[in-house]
Amino acid sequence: MRVLLVVAYDGTNYCGWQVQNNGETIEGVLNRELSALFGEEIEVIGASRTDSGVHSLGNVAVFDTATRMPAEKIVYALNKRLPEDIRIQKSCQVADSFHPRKHVCTKTYEYRILNREFELPLQRLNSYFFRRKLDIEKMKEACPFFLGEHDFKSFCSVHTQAETTVRTIYSLTVEQEDSLIKIHVTGSGFLYNMVRILAGTLIQVGIGAYRPEEMAAMIEAKDRQAAGPTAPACGLTLIGMQYEEWPELTELNI
Amino acid sequence: MRVLLVVAYDGTNYCGWQVQNNGETIEGVLNRELSALFGEEIEVIGASRTDSGVHSLGNVAVFDTATRMPAEKIVYALNKRLPEDIRIQKSCQVADSFHPRKHVCTKTYEYRILNREFELPLQRLNSYFFRRKLDIEKMKEACPFFLGEHDFKSFCSVHTQAETTVRTIYSLTVEQEDSLIKIHVTGSGFLYNMVRILAGTLIQVGIGAYRPEEMAAMIEAKDRQAAGPTAPACGLTLIGMQYEEWPELTELNI
Repeated sequence: MRVLLVVAYDGTNYCGWQVQNNGETIEGVLNRELSALFGEEIEVIGASRTDSGVHSLGNVAVFDTATRMPAEKIVYALNKRLPEDIRIQKSCQVADSFHPRKHVCTKTYEYRILNREFELPLQRLNSYFFRRKLDIEKMKEACPFFLGEHDFKSFCSVHTQAETTVRTIYSLTVEQEDSLIKIHVTGSGFLYNMVRILAGTLIQVGIGAYRPEEMAAMIEAKDRQAAGPTAPACGLTLIGMQYEEWPELTELNI
Repeated sequence: MRVLLVVAYDGTNYCGWQVQNNGETIEGVLNRELSALFGEEIEVIGASRTDSGVHSLGNVAVFDTATRMPAEKIVYALNKRLPEDIRIQKSCQVADSFHPRKHVCTKTYEYRILNREFELPLQRLNSYFFRRKLDIEKMKEACPFFLGEHDFKSFCSVHTQAETTVRTIYSLTVEQEDSLIKIHVTGSGFLYNMVRILAGTLIQVGIGAYRPEEMAAMIEAKDRQAAGPTAPACGLTLIGMQYEEWPELTELNI
């Protein structure tokens, strides 16, 4: 059977999702522990290959297994074997044809900025500490320019292998809770480093380096040099993904 | 001069505030780094001797020094030397007579409970994971019984050295943000383990082991056996303290 996992992790101590030669990855840990659990060679297919240091509340992975353990019980057996910085949130059987990267879905990310004079140790795992005071209202004004379908080439690292750089952003919001600024973005998928470049650009708007209305020309330029810097990985969390055909698959009560 | 520090820390990797023989403490790190910074023997006096594993956003400490460094600059020099899980939030000169445990003040603590089926790795530093579903409304109903001046002997570990077990609680609230339940309590000081016993008792109310109205008799009993268990240290954060005579000392923008 094919089994879907919803995977939460603190990415601080991992070299990202995808198996690498030079360090521990989320995918590598899942492959190892699932193989040991079931006594067969297991390789997961991940929905989102998050970068080194990026976190997740709801990444999705599938794998095939011959086990007779009920799919919805696997979450308990697997969590017992996983380190404390990875926790499965759900396991369920899916159709053998289900592939987490080949079905229409939306993804939601959160980028957290701690904007105050001194760092707060308890926030250090999943926020980017930025001392200079940000103008939240300006950051909010910049958001609408990104909504809808655009060629986001300016917001894509040059290393990309993507066939097209056109993506659709359904929502982009900036909200503040005391000194924590949260950027939320939902879209039809994101280019390599796109959310971190968006965050880095909004931060530049927040310090007055760009005016909000400059966003239109920045997108239009289709040139990575036109946008702001890539914000650090530690601030980024993949909140979750929603499959159009199977909304119930990843329904989560965070 | 006498200098006041507002100290934030992630207590996960420390044996509490107070210097111990058997492990690293917040006080120990501050003494060592201040002594090295100023080239003189420095010993801080802490306001709240938080337990092993307890966190802080705004503990207070004072020390005497012969340095000519302006007091408000010490925060920058000291933070450069501190590990990432301790961060000073403010430094300022205070009267030589100021002692952080000998002036009237209120303290505010937060106890965080992650109440869901599976742990979230990003919340593991500063929340207590509790799987069984809690009835928040019942927990809220229990709060008013604790308000005001009471003998809180039932909510004090037997190891206490306190002269009196009478304390005043000014506010006690329970709020929920998705699966995170936050207990906030402000009082005239707290007995040993008092906030953790309060949290442990409210959790018992939340699972139906006690009815809210039983809180009155529980306080009246003046017997540690009458109250609930001590909730784990990892969920507890000292939010801050407010000195009646010097409210500006610890004014913080968290």
